[in-house]
Amino acid sequence: MTDLRHIRALLFDVFGSVVDWRSSITRDLTAWGLANGTTADWEAFARDWRSHYQSNLEEVRSGRRPFTLLDTLHREALNVLLEKYGIHDLSEHQKDHVNRVWHRLDAWPDSVPGLLRLKAHFTIAPLSNGNVSLLNNMAKHAALPWDLNLSTQWFKAYKPMPETYLGAVQALGLEPEQVMMCAAHNDDLKAAQEVGLKTAFWPRPTEYGLDQNKDMKPTEPWHIVAKDIRDLADQLIG
Amino acid sequence: MTDLRHIRALLFDVFGSVVDWRSSITRDLTAWGLANGTTADWEAFARDWRSHYQSNLEEVRSGRRPFTLLDTLHREALNVLLEKYGIHDLSEHQKDHVNRVWHRLDAWPDSVPGLLRLKAHFTIAPLSNGNVSLLNNMAKHAALPWDLNLSTQWFKAYKPMPETYLGAVQALGLEPEQVMMCAAHNDDLKAAQEVGLKTAFWPRPTEYGLDQNKDMKPTEPWHIVAKDIRDLADQLIG
Repeated sequence: MTDLRHIRALLFDVFGSVVDWRSSITRDLTAWGLANGTTADWEAFARDWRSHYQSNLEEVRSGRRPFTLLDTLHREALNVLLEKYGIHDLSEHQKDHVNRVWHRLDAWPDSVPGLLRLKAHFTIAPLSNGNVSLLNNMAKHAALPWDLNLSTQWFKAYKPMPETYLGAVQALGLEPEQVMMCAAHNDDLKAAQEVGLKTAFWPRPTEYGLDQNKDMKPTEPWHIVAKDIRDLADQLIG
Repeated sequence: MTDLRHIRALLFDVFGSVVDWRSSITRDLTAWGLANGTTADWEAFARDWRSHYQSNLEEVRSGRRPFTLLDTLHREALNVLLEKYGIHDLSEHQKDHVNRVWHRLDAWPDSVPGLLRLKAHFTIAPLSNGNVSLLNNMAKHAALPWDLNLSTQWFKAYKPMPETYLGAVQALGLEPEQVMMCAAHNDDLKAAQEVGLKTAFWPRPTEYGLDQNKDMKPTEPWHIVAKDIRDLADQLIG
């Protein structure tokens, strides 16, 4: 087994790994829609939104577009989706509120108990493509007890670009092998491992819905494979 | 009285305002010196170190030198001081340990209780010239319950340069009038006020020692003048 005694900091992927974006958005927008007379299949809407965001991100990662905040990318995708779902009567204020649903995501049930235990032994931080204010508002909303906010906004780059992982390691004043990337997404871990970080995986088999077929299990022998974040704490702390 | 209902985030100066660097360094290095056979007037040493740091910072602020981490500026000043105090026999490892005393500073007694109360109502963050890892290690050491770490390192600038205050406001996704700079130093507050932030002051009359003659009281009608951080919480939350 790899020696994990030198680990000082744990970096967490957030969307899907720590928070359940699909259920949270569905709940939030269903309630908002009922109060505002707007009906839609909000779960399909949430999934559609998430997939638009990925292609928008790729524009930035490829260098075809300068660094742009995730809030802005979400808002651009929202405009497309409102059209697609035939929702035409929202004010700018309402669109802003809907867009900020990404700031109001709830944690999976094991996330806060697991993070609180880990925080007593390690520095814990999100390393997420969410912008600084998004991650901060989400942390206040969901009581995520981060030590610091390592949005990739600080590095003007998006995961899985190597400068995000290495930027976080450098900001913490550590070496890559002292830092563990923790995520429910194999591709995130692969990119982190390629620049020398340790890795921990747990599955979120309902992240995308009941028809999910990606990230159901680890695709590589990551340093830790856990059931969830509570189990990650059990394995790291004992 | 100014309307403070729109305030969403509180930014704190750290050295002197939240932590007592003079007493902490004196305690830490006295104990370290006893264990390592090195004697010195550690309180004079701490004060000297702090004043060297200010002139090193000015080199960066003036543009005569590119942005350099505070850890590096502290280390350069330490080398000068070790010479001055006749301490010649330290290993590199020992010098590193001594330099990182700035990561091990203790809070004034009111800081943690006040910050914990404020955190329930506002986003709270250090806005400090300490580098990210320094502020993170200090927060872990002293149990400072920051929501996020707004080291001026993120902005590659040092207070009181305006881009530090405005960079923090922008990262939080807020307007300057929604953010309050909180400090025991009038010059820090003045610079924050000049770019539109709200201001809160409390004195730390023994920060520099019994002969202190600066920042004993507010020099301007700041939005809040408090006795300490606990009193700041009383005034902001009631």
